[in-house]
Amino acid sequence: MTDTALYFEDLQPGMKFRGGEVYVELDAVYDFAHRYDPQTFHINPEAALDSVFSGLAVSGWQTASLTMRMLTQSPLARIANGLVGMQVDEMRWPVPVRPEDTLRAEFEILHCQRSRSKPGFGVVTVRWQTHNQHHELVMHCINKMWVQARTTGEVV
Amino acid sequence: MTDTALYFEDLQPGMKFRGGEVYVELDAVYDFAHRYDPQTFHINPEAALDSVFSGLAVSGWQTASLTMRMLTQSPLARIANGLVGMQVDEMRWPVPVRPEDTLRAEFEILHCQRSRSKPGFGVVTVRWQTHNQHHELVMHCINKMWVQARTTGEVV
Repeated sequence: MTDTALYFEDLQPGMKFRGGEVYVELDAVYDFAHRYDPQTFHINPEAALDSVFSGLAVSGWQTASLTMRMLTQSPLARIANGLVGMQVDEMRWPVPVRPEDTLRAEFEILHCQRSRSKPGFGVVTVRWQTHNQHHELVMHCINKMWVQARTTGEVV
Repeated sequence: MTDTALYFEDLQPGMKFRGGEVYVELDAVYDFAHRYDPQTFHINPEAALDSVFSGLAVSGWQTASLTMRMLTQSPLARIANGLVGMQVDEMRWPVPVRPEDTLRAEFEILHCQRSRSKPGFGVVTVRWQTHNQHHELVMHCINKMWVQARTTGEVV
């Protein structure tokens, strides 16, 4: 595996990429919640027992952000123009993430299309799947990214 | 305006709620990027000039997280079971957020439906719109939330 940049032409549907795993530290859960999502079930372990989560849960936005970190630790981080989100088509959190979980993410390319509006770029659709240490799916989303092409190419 | 809890029956399509505004501090941009999205265009002002963003840009996941904070500062935070995301159907970032921007968010209820799978709950579809100080739309998404009902009610 070399460290050369990836371009639109290098990506094809069916390719899968793994991100590095992430351990969810309790301090980081509190830090995120206080800054961005200060709800009882994210910051107060006792009160969280009576919530819909039956215990302290990680904000879904922190899970998404941690999955972004895993994407930056995957081979897809070599995309020439960086990882630039265009649109999320669908995102779900089927199982709550808990402090001290260990998360792993996999990124699968579903679709590649030349952009009509942005010559020299393509739109690559990627499925993000994040699992915990019990192999439960805790988040998935479908994410379209802008990816620079090597050539201007023809619109297909 | 009283501080009583809101239930499914209190929400109707067309209702709009404002969140408190947020000033995007440069230190918080660096902090978020180093933890969750350590790409050049989020952490290095000089290198960012040559990126697709032509300058330092805020991670889209931080913009989403800041919008979540504004939601917790809106009257919708009074929902009885808390703000519990079920699904995002669509999310876009049409204009980059820059450090030192001031963001404002508006939340509009689009649809309310009793849950078939979770008796005593409804699914409320909310459009999130986040603008900067130049009145440009920097993020929008369509978000479905679980909202507790006062009564078990009939499935409609």
